[in-house]
Amino acid sequence: MDWKHVVVLITIPTDKGLELADYIVKNKLGACVNVVPEVNSIYWWKGNIERDKESLLMIKTSLQKLEELIKEVKSVHPYTVPEIIALPILGGNEDYLRWIDDSLGL
Amino acid sequence: MDWKHVVVLITIPTDKGLELADYIVKNKLGACVNVVPEVNSIYWWKGNIERDKESLLMIKTSLQKLEELIKEVKSVHPYTVPEIIALPILGGNEDYLRWIDDSLGL
Amino acid sequence: MDWKHVVVLITIPTDKGLELADYIVKNKLGACVNVVPEVNSIYWWKGNIERDKESLLMIKTSLQKLEELIKEVKSVHPYTVPEIIALPILGGNEDYLRWIDDSLGL
Repeated sequence: MDWKHVVVLITIPTDKGLELADYIVKNKLGACVNVVPEVNSIYWWKGNIERDKESLLMIKTSLQKLEELIKEVKSVHPYTVPEIIALPILGGNEDYLRWIDDSLGL
Repeated sequence: MDWKHVVVLITIPTDKGLELADYIVKNKLGACVNVVPEVNSIYWWKGNIERDKESLLMIKTSLQKLEELIKEVKSVHPYTVPEIIALPILGGNEDYLRWIDDSLGL
Repeated sequence: MDWKHVVVLITIPTDKGLELADYIVKNKLGACVNVVPEVNSIYWWKGNIERDKESLLMIKTSLQKLEELIKEVKSVHPYTVPEIIALPILGGNEDYLRWIDDSLGL
């Protein structure tokens, strides 16, 4: 399978979510970002279980943009090791997938 | 990999989300729909950055139903180019995956 | 493609979501869980369309842990046939993917 598009998931403190979403769209790293305003996050950090409220970003983009997106988000994200994970898109509305590429100038 | 099931993501104005979810389940285009009531969406449209509140539908269905789901949703969705994207399912609770097919009459 | 990490989606009644998320992290079945507090779920059950409010868990874990996660969640989940589905991760922040494995003792 030759993956062309991905949904990228990123978590971030709730007061920074919209700002990062704007940054991603303005810099054409993603064509569309959905921000789930508040999720409860539970995870291991330095041997303890931590619980936080975070925003969850879901970014629709081209696989061609993934490396640049990861690099740019790491440079502006407040965490040392931010969650940035890409899920492959198997198919969908072909007009929408074309719109992703057009929006990104590809 | 021979993908059999998918999670389909669709965004829609917040006042139309439950109606579309009902339509999808009633017409056996998906076995189960989760509706995230409100997400903030940021995206390019005709050269400008737009910001909207939308509902996000997450539809659990069979890959066999994907083409019909896309066609039907495009015919009832208020947008010209609705987001309809399918993420492949790698595995899970086998009873649940069988239940998806049973619910869809496959 | 040799998939190494997955995002596992699980739905559960809203008053049990955080408890299950804690159980998963404490038992190192997942490195990080995001809980979307409330989604509207519409689905077929025994010939009728049901509507419920549920929490949605999104678990970041290694594919090596998937079978154990499914088995353990089935043993504590209140439903007969719980939704447990795994979406493959294509790539992302390599430090984060390594952190998943480290957190799980892999």
